[in-house]
Amino acid sequence: MTAEPSTTPRPSAQGPGAARQHTLRERNLQLVARAVFDAPTPLSRADVAAATGLTRATVSTLVDRLVEGGLVSELPPVAAQRAGRPAVPLVPAGRSVVGLGLEVNVDYLGARVLDLTGEVVVSRVTAGSFHDSDPADVLGTLGTLARDVVAEVHDGGMRLAGARLALPGLVDARTAELEVAPNLGWSSLEPVPLLGLRGPDGSEVPVVVANEAKLAALAELAGDVPSSFLYVSGDVGIGAGIVVDGRLLAAERGWNGEVGHVVVDPAGPRCSCGAYGCLEQYAGKEEILRSAGLPVDASLAELLELLRSHDRGAGAAVQRAGRALGSALADFVNLLGVSTVVLGGVYTELEPWLRDEVLTVMGERVLAAPFVSLEVRAAQAGQYAALSGGAREVLREVVAYPAAWV
Amino acid sequence: MTAEPSTTPRPSAQGPGAARQHTLRERNLQLVARAVFDAPTPLSRADVAAATGLTRATVSTLVDRLVEGGLVSELPPVAAQRAGRPAVPLVPAGRSVVGLGLEVNVDYLGARVLDLTGEVVVSRVTAGSFHDSDPADVLGTLGTLARDVVAEVHDGGMRLAGARLALPGLVDARTAELEVAPNLGWSSLEPVPLLGLRGPDGSEVPVVVANEAKLAALAELAGDVPSSFLYVSGDVGIGAGIVVDGRLLAAERGWNGEVGHVVVDPAGPRCSCGAYGCLEQYAGKEEILRSAGLPVDASLAELLELLRSHDRGAGAAVQRAGRALGSALADFVNLLGVSTVVLGGVYTELEPWLRDEVLTVMGERVLAAPFVSLEVRAAQAGQYAALSGGAREVLREVVAYPAAWV
Repeated sequence: MTAEPSTTPRPSAQGPGAARQHTLRERNLQLVARAVFDAPTPLSRADVAAATGLTRATVSTLVDRLVEGGLVSELPPVAAQRAGRPAVPLVPAGRSVVGLGLEVNVDYLGARVLDLTGEVVVSRVTAGSFHDSDPADVLGTLGTLARDVVAEVHDGGMRLAGARLALPGLVDARTAELEVAPNLGWSSLEPVPLLGLRGPDGSEVPVVVANEAKLAALAELAGDVPSSFLYVSGDVGIGAGIVVDGRLLAAERGWNGEVGHVVVDPAGPRCSCGAYGCLEQYAGKEEILRSAGLPVDASLAELLELLRSHDRGAGAAVQRAGRALGSALADFVNLLGVSTVVLGGVYTELEPWLRDEVLTVMGERVLAAPFVSLEVRAAQAGQYAALSGGAREVLREVVAYPAAWV
Repeated sequence: MTAEPSTTPRPSAQGPGAARQHTLRERNLQLVARAVFDAPTPLSRADVAAATGLTRATVSTLVDRLVEGGLVSELPPVAAQRAGRPAVPLVPAGRSVVGLGLEVNVDYLGARVLDLTGEVVVSRVTAGSFHDSDPADVLGTLGTLARDVVAEVHDGGMRLAGARLALPGLVDARTAELEVAPNLGWSSLEPVPLLGLRGPDGSEVPVVVANEAKLAALAELAGDVPSSFLYVSGDVGIGAGIVVDGRLLAAERGWNGEVGHVVVDPAGPRCSCGAYGCLEQYAGKEEILRSAGLPVDASLAELLELLRSHDRGAGAAVQRAGRALGSALADFVNLLGVSTVVLGGVYTELEPWLRDEVLTVMGERVLAAPFVSLEVRAAQAGQYAALSGGAREVLREVVAYPAAWV
């Protein structure tokens, strides 16, 4: 497992002497940026000095760089508690440096821009049906949508730091290649060139490709969630993101969270992957719809309507999904030791009907269940969470490596 | 998920001004210690300066502290490639600061001391049968063994940095309480006071309690293994350690790797945990022995003898275990994205007979199998690996927080 790749260029050494100075200054800039961005309430320059162990003079110079570079803003001074100059609270800068989240999913395309305060600057989503679609067509359409959004941001005087492209499949983080996205019918392709995304001045926009469930998991961090949790996103396929101490658990080539093909019952039905009794055969969206007596292309709204009117077949279908999901989640909780599971994708709205079955099976199967409080909750990040998670991840990298931006 | 607790005291602040200087000096000391200990070949002071970005004067002062404090040794100078003073290679100090690994398992007790070079200084193991044993008796016996070892180390002029106690059960990392160790028949107890371990001068020896499979996983890092892997240890119970970038994946209260109760077949036999078809019912040591036609208290040597003489029943029993293990491992590899699985405990010696079945099932069930090279290998760390892993973990903390020791 290695770190996920960066969207931001990292400055290179300029000879041994320069590199040493450079490295030190950059490390201090990182410390200061982290202190300002991680603070639950705004810090002053003096607070940052106390938090980092750097001198006030050094902190002041570095904060000035972050302010001039548009990463940090100064609020109006507040009177100091003791004698002395009033303190200037430091906060993330709004509408200055921004990140772009892009997504292709089975039934929509989208682009969303967030700024460093976490505000949505622009968000565009287009519905469609991209089952067994042509990657060049679909990514070309998304590229056009993205170019419009980038132009809008540029016209507003903002600087785009980069983009993340969310795809429902196995993405090789090293090569930016999509190995396979079964529900789009795509395999072995490089998505970024097909987007053809450039800035209004013709400059290249760095785009990193990632799995959609993982980016959606990161979007949860904007809300009230523990710093470690397992995010499981249900759709036609089922994906997961493992968040540990506020970061995605990285993996060799970025391949993890492929939970749709976990064994629920080796005597179960044959799966599209060739194996038997995979989780998707019980808790995949199409399987839930089919088992509820609906066509596989029915909408989630139709299923919810049946559930709200206490339809027996629909209730039984969701219970069956809940039991299978509970069994798979119990295995993961035993392995990972997390106690919070966040349900995303279609599971978010199904949570009231899934929850009891999931918790019952987990209670039976999690070895630590008598000693911990297991929590299963609906995702909070709202629709198209991978768009927000992708934009957020771009900006996390800006704050982690600020020297390239100030 | 939080960091595992430290065995080493961390210096506290001494007022704001002192704390600031302190923090800076400590951070630099950490950088220097890490550079020396992580280097594949010995570095000189100049190499450390280049690697850390610190000045040569600062590095020299800090290296002197590490040498005087007994963490680092200097090798005889080697002639410099260019003009200038000969370079002094820096290496971890032998027989100076040492770590103690302790273990209670179902059929043995042990104590082992390693030094910073990774050498075994003392190792003592006592066979026994601790199924449904009395914790006070057993831990008292281990405490006596440990006191002898500590005295020996002390007489040799070495400094003991602390100890880790490995137990085959669910340990709460926050409270150092053992929640349950099913195969010892222990539950809800505090093991450390029962050890009654003190240094020869009556000083307290800091002991951290941990799960044995996790410490055994860390012992693998001394050998030729990728920095990220899944370690699965088979015994009466089955435990796992998830190693990511050379560190154990931490979990809330330290509870993870509980893989013995993963679902293999919901229609399978009832497990001691109350659920059905758990992995231990197929691949636990007693179940393999029973299914091979041996008594459950037969030795591994008896099973290996049958396997070597091509006994059909024994072969079938191990194949059945391998299929179940392959199914569980496939789920974990899908979730975690690791590609290397290390087989520990009784699986180490069974590996030649398990390997094919495990790899076949994983090949069918791991979604990324067509794109990665899955590797299943026997553990290299030898018998009683948790003893070495525990001692190693104590010393890792010394290197990570050297200020308390120099």
